[in-house]
Amino acid sequence: MSRVSLSPEMLYNIDAYWRAANYLSVGQIYLYANPLLRRPLVLADIKRMLLGHWGTTPGQNFIYVHLNRIIKKYDLDMIYIAGPGHGGPAVVANTYLEGTYSEIYPEISQDEAGLQKLFLQFSFPGGIPSHASPECPGSIHEGGELGYSLSHAFGAVFDHPELIVACVVGDGEAETGPLATAWHSNKFLNLVHDGVVLPILHLNGYKISNPSILARIPRAELEQLLQGYGWTPYFVEGDDPAFMHETMATALDSVIEKIQAIQYEARTMGELHRPSWPMIVLCSPKGWTGPQVVDDLQIEGTFRAHQVPLIVSESTPATHLAMLESWMLSYRPDELFDATGKLFPALAALAPEGQRRMGANPHANGGVLLRDLLLPDFRAYAETLQQRGMLGIGDMHVLGRFLRDIVVANKARRNFRIFGPDETLSNGLKSVFEVTSRQWNAKIAVNDEFLAQDGMVLDSMLSEHQCEGWLEGYLLTGRHGVFTCYEAFIHIIDSMFNQHAKWLKVAAQLPWRAKIASLNIVLTSHVWRQDHNGFTHQDPGFIDYVLNKKASIIRVYLPPDANCLLSVMDHCLRSRHYVNVVIAGKHPAPQWLSMEAAVTHCAQGIGIWDWASNDRGEMPDVVMACCGDVPTLETLAAISILREHLPDLKIRCINIVDLARLQPATEHPHGLSDTDFDDLFTTHQPVVFAFHSYPWLIHRLTYDRINQRNIHVHGYQEEGTITTQFDMTVLNELDRFHLVMDVIDHLPQANDKTRQLKQLVEEKLIKHGKYIRLYGEDMPEISNWHWNPTPRHSATE
Amino acid sequence: MSRVSLSPEMLYNIDAYWRAANYLSVGQIYLYANPLLRRPLVLADIKRMLLGHWGTTPGQNFIYVHLNRIIKKYDLDMIYIAGPGHGGPAVVANTYLEGTYSEIYPEISQDEAGLQKLFLQFSFPGGIPSHASPECPGSIHEGGELGYSLSHAFGAVFDHPELIVACVVGDGEAETGPLATAWHSNKFLNLVHDGVVLPILHLNGYKISNPSILARIPRAELEQLLQGYGWTPYFVEGDDPAFMHETMATALDSVIEKIQAIQYEARTMGELHRPSWPMIVLCSPKGWTGPQVVDDLQIEGTFRAHQVPLIVSESTPATHLAMLESWMLSYRPDELFDATGKLFPALAALAPEGQRRMGANPHANGGVLLRDLLLPDFRAYAETLQQRGMLGIGDMHVLGRFLRDIVVANKARRNFRIFGPDETLSNGLKSVFEVTSRQWNAKIAVNDEFLAQDGMVLDSMLSEHQCEGWLEGYLLTGRHGVFTCYEAFIHIIDSMFNQHAKWLKVAAQLPWRAKIASLNIVLTSHVWRQDHNGFTHQDPGFIDYVLNKKASIIRVYLPPDANCLLSVMDHCLRSRHYVNVVIAGKHPAPQWLSMEAAVTHCAQGIGIWDWASNDRGEMPDVVMACCGDVPTLETLAAISILREHLPDLKIRCINIVDLARLQPATEHPHGLSDTDFDDLFTTHQPVVFAFHSYPWLIHRLTYDRINQRNIHVHGYQEEGTITTQFDMTVLNELDRFHLVMDVIDHLPQANDKTRQLKQLVEEKLIKHGKYIRLYGEDMPEISNWHWNPTPRHSATE
Repeated sequence: MSRVSLSPEMLYNIDAYWRAANYLSVGQIYLYANPLLRRPLVLADIKRMLLGHWGTTPGQNFIYVHLNRIIKKYDLDMIYIAGPGHGGPAVVANTYLEGTYSEIYPEISQDEAGLQKLFLQFSFPGGIPSHASPECPGSIHEGGELGYSLSHAFGAVFDHPELIVACVVGDGEAETGPLATAWHSNKFLNLVHDGVVLPILHLNGYKISNPSILARIPRAELEQLLQGYGWTPYFVEGDDPAFMHETMATALDSVIEKIQAIQYEARTMGELHRPSWPMIVLCSPKGWTGPQVVDDLQIEGTFRAHQVPLIVSESTPATHLAMLESWMLSYRPDELFDATGKLFPALAALAPEGQRRMGANPHANGGVLLRDLLLPDFRAYAETLQQRGMLGIGDMHVLGRFLRDIVVANKARRNFRIFGPDETLSNGLKSVFEVTSRQWNAKIAVNDEFLAQDGMVLDSMLSEHQCEGWLEGYLLTGRHGVFTCYEAFIHIIDSMFNQHAKWLKVAAQLPWRAKIASLNIVLTSHVWRQDHNGFTHQDPGFIDYVLNKKASIIRVYLPPDANCLLSVMDHCLRSRHYVNVVIAGKHPAPQWLSMEAAVTHCAQGIGIWDWASNDRGEMPDVVMACCGDVPTLETLAAISILREHLPDLKIRCINIVDLARLQPATEHPHGLSDTDFDDLFTTHQPVVFAFHSYPWLIHRLTYDRINQRNIHVHGYQEEGTITTQFDMTVLNELDRFHLVMDVIDHLPQANDKTRQLKQLVEEKLIKHGKYIRLYGEDMPEISNWHWNPTPRHSATE
Repeated sequence: MSRVSLSPEMLYNIDAYWRAANYLSVGQIYLYANPLLRRPLVLADIKRMLLGHWGTTPGQNFIYVHLNRIIKKYDLDMIYIAGPGHGGPAVVANTYLEGTYSEIYPEISQDEAGLQKLFLQFSFPGGIPSHASPECPGSIHEGGELGYSLSHAFGAVFDHPELIVACVVGDGEAETGPLATAWHSNKFLNLVHDGVVLPILHLNGYKISNPSILARIPRAELEQLLQGYGWTPYFVEGDDPAFMHETMATALDSVIEKIQAIQYEARTMGELHRPSWPMIVLCSPKGWTGPQVVDDLQIEGTFRAHQVPLIVSESTPATHLAMLESWMLSYRPDELFDATGKLFPALAALAPEGQRRMGANPHANGGVLLRDLLLPDFRAYAETLQQRGMLGIGDMHVLGRFLRDIVVANKARRNFRIFGPDETLSNGLKSVFEVTSRQWNAKIAVNDEFLAQDGMVLDSMLSEHQCEGWLEGYLLTGRHGVFTCYEAFIHIIDSMFNQHAKWLKVAAQLPWRAKIASLNIVLTSHVWRQDHNGFTHQDPGFIDYVLNKKASIIRVYLPPDANCLLSVMDHCLRSRHYVNVVIAGKHPAPQWLSMEAAVTHCAQGIGIWDWASNDRGEMPDVVMACCGDVPTLETLAAISILREHLPDLKIRCINIVDLARLQPATEHPHGLSDTDFDDLFTTHQPVVFAFHSYPWLIHRLTYDRINQRNIHVHGYQEEGTITTQFDMTVLNELDRFHLVMDVIDHLPQANDKTRQLKQLVEEKLIKHGKYIRLYGEDMPEISNWHWNPTPRHSATE
């Protein structure tokens, strides 16, 4: 590292700025009043509940001011991600110091009255949380749950070639699985089209009450680990501020110059091989500059500095109040703020200006950068319905063509990516590789397929966490994307989805945050088509979990065929600020609706399929409802059997695409009114409902409907193994034969015909069981079945 | 490495044994009949659906035979974990060759008839899955979902000082987050009391359709990475079998001797510092020894070898059948199996004997090793109920004392551990540190607390994945444990829980698998007490997810106070083969039941609290139901208000501890019969139900009950931020005032008294809002409220 000696003035200013940020941070944690300490502190000046996390804060303040310096020096386009939890005081203090905070929240003005509000609001009812929450300018990463900072950072820099994301990784966070694998994201960066992540591993040594692992292995081992991950670490270690300012400045200058050299070689000389990217390891005491010893216990530099390091209340020694006062005065506020409470101009000048301020950088409010996706007309990709029930090529394969052309249409804008854990091909999207590749910057070998240094697909890492984190970062910085995943394994990112949904909910309430593109999760290789992978690969429960989140954020679609899938995806890709979960099949499957009918059906989200019904507008004897591609197939097969054997039975077939339509209008914006629901499902007739997922979700959604007790739901009962496709439905009683039996069981009375039919389907089930155990595949009458209504039916079609 | 030259005979035998395993693996994937190729293969000999994963299989077969050799040479106590997915053919082949398979499944005999069945059953309806599923002897790790092999391996060796777990890590699996952080588990191993994990990173270069990252970074970088993780890698790389046998044997001898030297130094000379443990990196071609080129595409050594590398069916070229035949014959089955189809004795002698066989090692059928936990009488830890509603010290703190003494009682057996992600103290279990420590084998510094090289708490790694994986491994090998976790962040391991529940379900159906101790997950720092951490820390939805799994496996308990928590935990710790989810508070909270009453209440799981009710056995006007500690408090506070202001209103108070009691008896073994349910909840009166989690879970559980439409559930509505404890309930309308309003709204008619009361509670809510925004804490009438029934009430107590 070349030595960057800061001028004495710069050193003083940087240190003063850091002290100002530290002062504001302590003030946020403690002060109810008297923000400038104009009079001696009294207990009434102290908040009654002391909340917030001091431990990480001074280190983050230190980082932030040094980043400000290099942003100005090199005119960098940089945003900041606070990985450590509860770093709120630091990011709030810094965005306040740089002026962004007061621009967005004018009542938090740059004077004593504003300081008073700034301090009071922190972790206070009606105020702001203790993380880098959506309320905080410059944040795209709240960090309440740890582990996703690096993934978000990489998501942000894809296709933002000028952007640098300074990503502070806590040494606690570094122990989580998602973070531990996220270091490998550097193998997916394109040197020309993507920006750079600058990780700053903040080794302050402790978590809540334990040391951190990376701080307690030999430094040489840590260096090997980071080099093994493909990074070149620059260590900045110490506790003397002057020394640390010099060292940090030197390191950052070296790092930025290294980054710029790499980019120069790549962008002007075509050197595109993966470099060992520079990063910083900052080893500073936890709770740096805070109380040293309280009640005979060492605080600074130990786990005890993690949260509030010094309790000041009626029940603590009076000395604590004095300690707090001298702690705050140690930052010498008189040298920082003028008589009105405003930061002195010489210090304020340290911060970058305008959109170069990390709190004001538009990348951290991605909606303002968002451009509509250019979408070809999805109707052009329709499966032409030659015949109702004709076998399609696999709904996901049809979607693949649409996605392919979306990639083409937006190639110049570079704002649409497809993410997946090694599954893009497996999930039926091969078409996209006609026009783009998998982006990959490690070695490429002879037999590799579709790998390239530049490509709009990111699917070469077997980590659902990374896919989700990258996509979230990509969306939060103003782009579009789709994540396709095996349905069962989406649970791996349950908690990440949860945090993103919470972010969206809060962000939607902030007028200054522009809405971002929806998080589109396409679940395929789903439970009913995991016959060949077995029980471990079968779990359709993600939507149970998803529907716990706010109805204003959540949309769940189960298109029954390819044309419906196209219509749904077109809608999802245009939407904003939702989590759209779409469940679709990838195997050849029957097609039911023309494109025109599909558009109408998807717009309604639920509807009677007249062509499969024979109630002719009268009160049906039974409603057969279906939701999901396989349940739709089995329901239509059951209807076919019923109409052949019980031609007088009046059946109404209802298909549901948009799951929320089942909910009351009072609970979800897509919910049906009770009147509409009752018109569809009747108020008293039996409803045999074939559902893609666990049956009780339907009961949960419909519990308040008049007819709910007559809804008999068939779905996944947690039964499965490696078997045949049809047998999966049999094991879970979702198959056509069980549906027929259930209809018969719920008719008001049995007769010879119903008894005969019941016996017939029972025999079919026995025959099925024997056949698959003999041949290992479904009997032809199942695998070759197709919708072929008898002439009797055709009158209604 | 010292050179271990295998004798020519040994080299031949090892290679032949490997060929036998490969032959059996190919047979499983392909053959419907003709298992010994006694006649030329015809299409009818081939399964119609070809399933299974060849890619990983030859490498695993190679590893297995070499492990057999060192088990015999060094008399090792070793089990095998197959990290790569779908390695079923390998583990089945090997446990068959060593004889274990036929001992457990006599119909799969060691002759031609047995081979026929062995081949047919694989990935065939009515047969076995393609992973190392519970059906496979020697397995504790199915590996359908990737990422948990190393965590399970470490869990298995804690407190098993003689055990070595050979853990094959796939290079795809190695990219997942959980696996990427699991390498750090070596910082938690005690050299005397714990065994050893021998990771074998299987670098075969490809995932489903992508290369693997670790295979495409420079070897030097990979070596740094593994050394940085604290391991010393031994590379075994090549494709020539003879060379590879020599190299692998040499490496394994070195590794075992290194392990034994470390253990000798630790156990006889007291050298307890963390060593750099040896491990193997096996670089072998994917699909090694399989088809080279098919239809002009390279197969061996590419991603194309991942699944079935050569399709043989009516629609493929006839040459494919011949290729399969010559592939199988390349293993020279005549040299491997005698005329009856039995492995030649000289080869069979390579396998270890008895329980030294990895398929027969009792550690892999942990239930057979399981000893009951020695449990002190939980009643001894009771909170003495001086007064109904007295403030306890925090329910988890009471549990801490019980757990402390369980640690003591079982210290000699070393079969009980407490797991948590840096949260044992935060979760209220400080008492356990009176008798044990956090096990930790990295550096210890001056101000650390409770860290030691030997301790029964494992909580010094901030990774829910590791805690869950370690505990699962610990349980699966016959021990007991508890995992305490912040409620919101348990979603991080949703998918791990899912896989474990699936394992339990299948294992329970296998008579030879002895039942293991239950997985006890204690969720605390729960949604209603995350007022200080905010929205990101608030999610009570784990139980929604848990209840999707089989009722025979799942138990969910919400004890309302400390005595109930003690009773519930005593039950959970005695139970077998469940997942018990217990939700409890850690903050000081009111106590309601004497220990005697708690035992009765928890045994029933649900019951009327007479002392809080005034319906005196008559039909109540309203049922007030509550489930969870905070909902119970708010319900009792609401009852108190109602009884003061509407003394004639007949209220029945019901508390639910065991959530499954609400389900129909037909759906859960703990479910109440309809009669019992109706007796409690009536068939027509309003039920105001205060619930810990999302309200619709109650609707889902009760959807089939007569009175379900009159059940009005209050629970978490996904509203929260940093605020006060009581305000969290107000934001979600779970507070006493909203409960009172809801009762009034559901009374048949209003009168002056009800109108007055409604106005009163509305005013209270306004007052509350003003107070917290002024002072930042709850008003005294809330925070100091205690149950104080008026004389009017006492008659019923």
